[in-house]
Amino acid sequence: MNNILIIGAGLSSSSLIKYVLEQAATRSWFVTVADAQLENAEKKVGNHPNGRAVWLDVMKVNDRRELIGRADVVVSILPAHLHLEVAHDCVKLKKHLITASYVSQEMYRLGDEARDRELIFMGEMGLDPGIDHMSAMKVINEIKESGGKITAFRSYTGGLIAPESDDNPWHYKITWNPRNVVLAGQGTAQYLENGRLRYQPYHRLYKECRTIDIPEVGKMEAYANRDSLLYRDAYGLADIPNILRGTLRYEGFCAAWDALIQIGLTDADFPILHSGEITYHELMDAYVDPYGGGSLKDRTAEMLGEDINSPVMKKLEWLGVFSKKKIKLPNATPALILEHLLRDKWKLKPTDKDMVVMHHEIEYEKKGEKRLRTSTMSKKGVNAEDTAMAQTVGLPMAIFVKLVVEGKIKSRGVQIPVMKEVYEPVLEELEQYGIVFHEIDRKL
Amino acid sequence: MNNILIIGAGLSSSSLIKYVLEQAATRSWFVTVADAQLENAEKKVGNHPNGRAVWLDVMKVNDRRELIGRADVVVSILPAHLHLEVAHDCVKLKKHLITASYVSQEMYRLGDEARDRELIFMGEMGLDPGIDHMSAMKVINEIKESGGKITAFRSYTGGLIAPESDDNPWHYKITWNPRNVVLAGQGTAQYLENGRLRYQPYHRLYKECRTIDIPEVGKMEAYANRDSLLYRDAYGLADIPNILRGTLRYEGFCAAWDALIQIGLTDADFPILHSGEITYHELMDAYVDPYGGGSLKDRTAEMLGEDINSPVMKKLEWLGVFSKKKIKLPNATPALILEHLLRDKWKLKPTDKDMVVMHHEIEYEKKGEKRLRTSTMSKKGVNAEDTAMAQTVGLPMAIFVKLVVEGKIKSRGVQIPVMKEVYEPVLEELEQYGIVFHEIDRKL
Repeated sequence: MNNILIIGAGLSSSSLIKYVLEQAATRSWFVTVADAQLENAEKKVGNHPNGRAVWLDVMKVNDRRELIGRADVVVSILPAHLHLEVAHDCVKLKKHLITASYVSQEMYRLGDEARDRELIFMGEMGLDPGIDHMSAMKVINEIKESGGKITAFRSYTGGLIAPESDDNPWHYKITWNPRNVVLAGQGTAQYLENGRLRYQPYHRLYKECRTIDIPEVGKMEAYANRDSLLYRDAYGLADIPNILRGTLRYEGFCAAWDALIQIGLTDADFPILHSGEITYHELMDAYVDPYGGGSLKDRTAEMLGEDINSPVMKKLEWLGVFSKKKIKLPNATPALILEHLLRDKWKLKPTDKDMVVMHHEIEYEKKGEKRLRTSTMSKKGVNAEDTAMAQTVGLPMAIFVKLVVEGKIKSRGVQIPVMKEVYEPVLEELEQYGIVFHEIDRKL
Repeated sequence: MNNILIIGAGLSSSSLIKYVLEQAATRSWFVTVADAQLENAEKKVGNHPNGRAVWLDVMKVNDRRELIGRADVVVSILPAHLHLEVAHDCVKLKKHLITASYVSQEMYRLGDEARDRELIFMGEMGLDPGIDHMSAMKVINEIKESGGKITAFRSYTGGLIAPESDDNPWHYKITWNPRNVVLAGQGTAQYLENGRLRYQPYHRLYKECRTIDIPEVGKMEAYANRDSLLYRDAYGLADIPNILRGTLRYEGFCAAWDALIQIGLTDADFPILHSGEITYHELMDAYVDPYGGGSLKDRTAEMLGEDINSPVMKKLEWLGVFSKKKIKLPNATPALILEHLLRDKWKLKPTDKDMVVMHHEIEYEKKGEKRLRTSTMSKKGVNAEDTAMAQTVGLPMAIFVKLVVEGKIKSRGVQIPVMKEVYEPVLEELEQYGIVFHEIDRKL
C-alpha cells in the first residue's frame, strides 16, 4: 500500500501535499495530485521524483475512477458537495478515504459498506472540524480516566490575522472560504447553559456575543456556532448541562458585523437589481430610510443607533460601503457583493502572517472540588502562501495518511477523529510543526 | 364543452363550487368535484343533479388522467406545488386549466405548448393574486387611455377580521393558510420609491411598516411584500418610479409581530430539541437572556425594549408564549410551534365574520396636474364557513370558468388576468356578489 491520490490542489492543499511528498521520498510512496487546473497540481508537485501532477475534471466519471482505481489511499480536498461521488467510487474500488469536511448524512450512510470492505473513511480531519475534535477528546478522556465528572465543555476556534499583520480597523483578514465568512451564523444557534437550552436567532447572534480571556492571547469575542449540541454523543458528553462551540474574533468585530446584518447586506437569497451598474453608495441608500434627511452616513448611523464617529461606523466607512465606486457585479446577491468587497479589503498581503487560535474550557468535579481545565493552541503562519490555516487543515490529513499507509489505524467505517488511536499520534506529531496545546488546570 | 372538473374541495373551495353548481343547473354543465377526502367533495356537491363527488389521490397518475381526460375545463385548487402535474396532463389531454396560485417559472415554460394547442392556462385568478391584478389593470388602463401618465402605484391587500368580530388584542384571526401567516415576509422586501430601489430585510420589515388611511376603513398598517417589482412589465409600468405592494393589518399588529421575529419564533429551519415535552415558557426561556434576573416576562420586555405592560407585551402574554402549558409537538420548528399556537388563539368562531380589504393608490399626471386615484374594496364574510376570503378567492375562478365554457375568452397560453377581456366581465360580475371597488380621484 503506497499509492496516494490527492484530489484538489487549491490554496489549502500546500501543507498537505508538501508533507506527503516529503514522506514519499523516504518511504517509496507514489503521490498523484489531481486538479481541474493542471498548473495548480504541477506547482505543488514540482519535479519531485515520487510525485505526479494530473488533470482531472472530477465530474468525468471514468477519468475519476481510473485514478482512484490505481490508488491505495484517497485524500479529497474538493468542495464538500463533491466528496460523495468520490466516496461511492472508494467503496466500489475498495480504497481508504480522507477528507477535512463535515460528514454529511449521505456519507454516514456509506458506513456499513465501508466497514464491510475493511475501509476507513475519515472525515472532519482538518482544523475545525478536526484538531478541535482531537484536542477536545484528549482532555475529556484524561479527565474522565482520572475520575473527574465533566460539567461544562466550551470550545472556541478562530482563523484570524496575527497581531503584527493586523493593519485594518476590523482586525480581520480572510484566511479561508470568503463565502463562508459572509454567511457565517445564518439560521438559529443552539447550545446548552446550566442545563437549559439556549437559542439565538441570526439577527441577535453577533449582538449578543461574549468576551473571553484566552491565556497568552488576550481578550477575544466569540459568537456561538449553529449547532453546539451536535457532538455531545460523539464526545461522550450526552448528559452534559453546558456545551458551547463558538467562533473567535478580535474585540469590536461582532458589533460591526452585526451592523452589516442589520442593514441587510448578508442576504444570499435574491439578486440586487442593476447590481452591475450601481455604486456601493446607491446599494446602501436602498437599505437605509431616506427620510429624516442628512447624508447616507448620517442616516445609517441613525438607523443603527451609532454615533457618526463610532468604531462601528469607522469600520463600515473603511470597508467602502459608502463609496461611489461601481459594484460591477451583474445579478449579484447582497452577500456576493459583500463577499467581493471583503475579498479585496480583507486580502492578506504577501508577507502577512495569519493566526489560528483554538481554546477549550472544560469544567469538572473531582473529589468534591470544582475545577477548570483550559487547553489552548495558537499558531501563526509564515506568510500569505504558507498560512497557519493551510497548515492546521492540511497536516492532520497528511499525518493520518501516513498512519493509514503504515497500517496503524484499526478503525473502520465512516468516522470522525475522536478515538485515541487517531488523536494520540496525530496530536503528538502536530507538535513538531508548532501546533501545540497548552493546558492550565485550576480550582474554580 | 360542458364538463367541469374541480380538483380540491378544501376550505377555500365553497364559493367556487357553489357558483359552478348553480350555473350548471341552468346551462346543463356537468361538474365533478375530486378530493383526497371523499366526504369533503360529497359535502360540497350535496345531491345536486349536475354534480358528482369522486375520490382522487392526485399523485395516482392514471386516476388523475382519467378524470382530466373526461373534462373540458379543469380548476385546480390543490396546494401550489401540485399544479404542475395537473398542467402537464392538461397539455397532453388538451384541457383548459384555471388556478388561483402564483404562476411558477416551470408553469410559464408550458406557455408555448398550451398556446399551440389552443388552450388557456389561467393562473393567479383568486384574490391576491387575482382581483388585485384585475382591479389594478382597470384603473391603470383607464388613466392611460384618458392621457394620464402614471408616476406611482401602491397596492395593499389584507385578509382580516371584521371589526364586529374582533375580540382579541392582536385584532387578527386566521382566514387563510396559517403556515403562510407565520412565514410572511421572510427574505428581503424590495420596492421602488422616488425612482430609487428600497430594500428591507426581514428583521426590519415589520419594525418599519407604514400607516395608511383607507377610505371608509380607517387607519391600517402595511408592510411591504417580498417583491413589489414583479408585475411592472405585466402591468405596463416598466419605468414607473414608485411601486409598492403591501399587506394590511390593523394598527399595533406589526410591532407585536416584530417582537416574535426578534425573539426568534418564526424560524422554520431547525427542530426545537425536546419540543414534544417542554412548555411554551421553557421555549421562550431558551430564547431570552437568563442574566439580569427577573421573571421571564421581565427579561423578555427588557430584551425587546418594551415596558412590561406595553401593548406588545400584552399581545405576547395573551398569545400564551409565557404559559407553562406543554407544547406537545415532537420535532417541531419554532415556526410550526407558533403556527399551532396561532391556529388555536386566532381561530374564527362559527359566527365570526372575516373581512378582505384591497386598496390601490395610483398617482398620475394629466394636463400638468398631479392627481391621485384610489380604488378600494372591502368585503365582509357571512360566518366562519362562508368567508370573504373564500368568496374573493373562489368567485373569480368560478366566473372565469363560465367565460371559458361560453367561449368568451380568446387569450391562449399561460396567463395572469391583466387583459381587458378577462377583468371587465369578471369585475362586473363580482359586483353582484358585493365585491365592489369604490374609486376616488382628486388633485394632489
